[in-house]
Amino acid sequence: MDEPAAPRRVVIVGGGFAGLFAARALRRSPVTVTVVDRCAHHLFQPLLYQCAAGILSEGQIARPLRVVLRRHRNVRCVLAEATDVDVAARIVRARRPEGSELELPYDDLIVAVGMRQSYFGHDEFAAHAPGMKTLDDALEIRHRLYRAFEMAETARDPEEKRQWLTFALVGGGPTGVELAGQIREIARRTLEREFSTIDPGTARVLLFEGSDEVLGTFGASLAARAARTLRGLGVELHLGTRVTDVDARGLAVRDREGVTTRFDARTVLWTAGVEAPPLAAALARATGAAQDRAGRIAVEPDLTLRGHPEIRVVGDVMGLDRLPGLAEVAMQTGAYAGRALRHSAAGRTAPAKPFRYFDMGSAAYICRGRAVVRAGRLHLSGVPGWLTWLFIHVAFLTGFRSRLGAVLSWAVVFASGARRERAFTSPFAQARMPPPEAGG
Amino acid sequence: MDEPAAPRRVVIVGGGFAGLFAARALRRSPVTVTVVDRCAHHLFQPLLYQCAAGILSEGQIARPLRVVLRRHRNVRCVLAEATDVDVAARIVRARRPEGSELELPYDDLIVAVGMRQSYFGHDEFAAHAPGMKTLDDALEIRHRLYRAFEMAETARDPEEKRQWLTFALVGGGPTGVELAGQIREIARRTLEREFSTIDPGTARVLLFEGSDEVLGTFGASLAARAARTLRGLGVELHLGTRVTDVDARGLAVRDREGVTTRFDARTVLWTAGVEAPPLAAALARATGAAQDRAGRIAVEPDLTLRGHPEIRVVGDVMGLDRLPGLAEVAMQTGAYAGRALRHSAAGRTAPAKPFRYFDMGSAAYICRGRAVVRAGRLHLSGVPGWLTWLFIHVAFLTGFRSRLGAVLSWAVVFASGARRERAFTSPFAQARMPPPEAGG
Repeated sequence: MDEPAAPRRVVIVGGGFAGLFAARALRRSPVTVTVVDRCAHHLFQPLLYQCAAGILSEGQIARPLRVVLRRHRNVRCVLAEATDVDVAARIVRARRPEGSELELPYDDLIVAVGMRQSYFGHDEFAAHAPGMKTLDDALEIRHRLYRAFEMAETARDPEEKRQWLTFALVGGGPTGVELAGQIREIARRTLEREFSTIDPGTARVLLFEGSDEVLGTFGASLAARAARTLRGLGVELHLGTRVTDVDARGLAVRDREGVTTRFDARTVLWTAGVEAPPLAAALARATGAAQDRAGRIAVEPDLTLRGHPEIRVVGDVMGLDRLPGLAEVAMQTGAYAGRALRHSAAGRTAPAKPFRYFDMGSAAYICRGRAVVRAGRLHLSGVPGWLTWLFIHVAFLTGFRSRLGAVLSWAVVFASGARRERAFTSPFAQARMPPPEAGG
Repeated sequence: MDEPAAPRRVVIVGGGFAGLFAARALRRSPVTVTVVDRCAHHLFQPLLYQCAAGILSEGQIARPLRVVLRRHRNVRCVLAEATDVDVAARIVRARRPEGSELELPYDDLIVAVGMRQSYFGHDEFAAHAPGMKTLDDALEIRHRLYRAFEMAETARDPEEKRQWLTFALVGGGPTGVELAGQIREIARRTLEREFSTIDPGTARVLLFEGSDEVLGTFGASLAARAARTLRGLGVELHLGTRVTDVDARGLAVRDREGVTTRFDARTVLWTAGVEAPPLAAALARATGAAQDRAGRIAVEPDLTLRGHPEIRVVGDVMGLDRLPGLAEVAMQTGAYAGRALRHSAAGRTAPAKPFRYFDMGSAAYICRGRAVVRAGRLHLSGVPGWLTWLFIHVAFLTGFRSRLGAVLSWAVVFASGARRERAFTSPFAQARMPPPEAGG
């Protein structure tokens, strides 16, 4: 007698680990799923630094969302940037790349927009110190790293040479540590004997960190071992420092005693902090949800917003229990939200068990033969840590057709130092070619 | 009694096939070689379209010049753009990426700057119709191709959908034909079943060519077969047409009868012509050498400039005998010039035999299972042509570490249509990240 109800419409904002795992959990559910993202690809973020460092290609770490979700008949992918949520009308507003507006109506909303690089109120630093969150960032960093050695080679002034051979990294978390290790390995191994007027091995890598240790989240013992490994690699650690200025020639930092020191470095990379993208603030305004200082959205124990059981927030932008911004947290919260919706779509009304994070541990790669791994009480470093890192990453790339390619690329770089993806685009402005115009 | 003479200084402008083969020929010669190029890599140009089409990565077709020339102890690589030649003082002037000037003194100069895309006096077309000469071009085209299908998917207006699903290619030479084949294969095979609101297979590919045939340089019989294959693939050929206008929404063409027709297409790619870069005009001014209409420099039969036996011009920018702009010509002229210098450095004074091009033939890929190959009297098309193409390209990639990777990528795309390098950077302007500033 009743007309068959139209299937419930689930909109997932963000195609990172959280959004992807939410969509996957809804595969056999009688709902329609729309995944909207600013990029057409799902990015394997933990290996982004390897793309920046010239080991892996873009295609090896970024697969089209459509390909990843190809077998999910109920999923539609939309390339657009979500800009606002109309909570009353249950509509996500989004902007297409050429500027026109899209409206995506929903019955259930999963917000998985992730976090972006934060410059702590100094967005003007960004021009001089790219972050490490997107494929664009990785290609920009690849360009700057390899160009710096080229510039050092042709500089006549010894002081200019030194500046091009000095790399400053801001932030001592996994990404900063991984980049520091990569730059020293590029300098010592990859570029060995390629230059005439410089010895790339003399390149200085300075790592600035506000706290008293690198990789603090791994615990004091692994942090100390990581610091030892980094120093052994030739990375100069400047702990307890805060960056106060960045320009095209270097940066200024203040230490705990309030002394400000200037460091000349033509390459400055920024991995120091994250902040929520604008959509998080729009959502908080619309729903009255609280945000923490970085903009993460406070959620109920079942990841919904208070007063809005139809809205779930997952992944890095979710502010529950101060969980770290790890791929593992994103996957688990995304899958949890997707399962909750699946149960609800199946008519089960029992209240959901609160989300509980199952800590599988974490790993950070330092250099060939060295990584730190923390999994429960298990703390590994050095070669055992590295082998574990290798195993985890080969296993996790399983869904990726490029696993074989990645293993080959690693075999080459571990054995010989050669990097297969060093090519970068022209360092000269293309005068005749303005940026693509919106076709709108 | 005499002081040992300083080694002769050879400057090679350009690290393409011509410059590279010249440097290689000088490997064991008692000269110092400086290779100066705007890019840090040597580009395997014949496969550039595969990078644009998402089959190969940048690293698979572009290797750092330093790596390619690693074993050449007498070679120095310089990342800079040659801007002028002071013929009297024997100095090449160049600009480094941050703008400062470099002076490269030479005893012998080899000019191998290649040709760039020509818009026949309409440089304003470039913003709407990228060319296909550089890695930047290929990544730009990859971005536009895959973005177009995404835009078609989210367009609400059927007319806008049709425009995004229409691809116009200007130029019916090998690059235009290869791109036309790639786009139809992407539409029919790679993207099959990935979209909800469009059928990618309906994408129209329009190929505009000024003459009466595509691949005219392959001879009438192969040209006719190529046209048949393209039409069978669904490519619409518009022969005998000249493009009179290009904008963000399409292009206008005039046919032989003088009738102008407008075609709506949100993606327009340009492979129609080439012109010499500004250095060629600078060199012609300085030496009085003649240039042809496209700017190629007239040379003596031994590839030197009249009155300047110390300057040799090789590769695409050399105007001898109206030779075609093929990799093979570039390799042979580069190697010839390098050998001539090697003999001269070894003190042999016999006049060099004039350069003679040994035509090894040429090949153009159309689609899976279809290519045309011309080698002397041997004309192949269809599957035999394709197998020959495959053999030649695998063989020629020999020097490339990525040969295995390329073969794997081809195996995947031929077998399943899947393309491993579809990832493109963000289609949204990165508001916070201005382009890298010159650090000068």
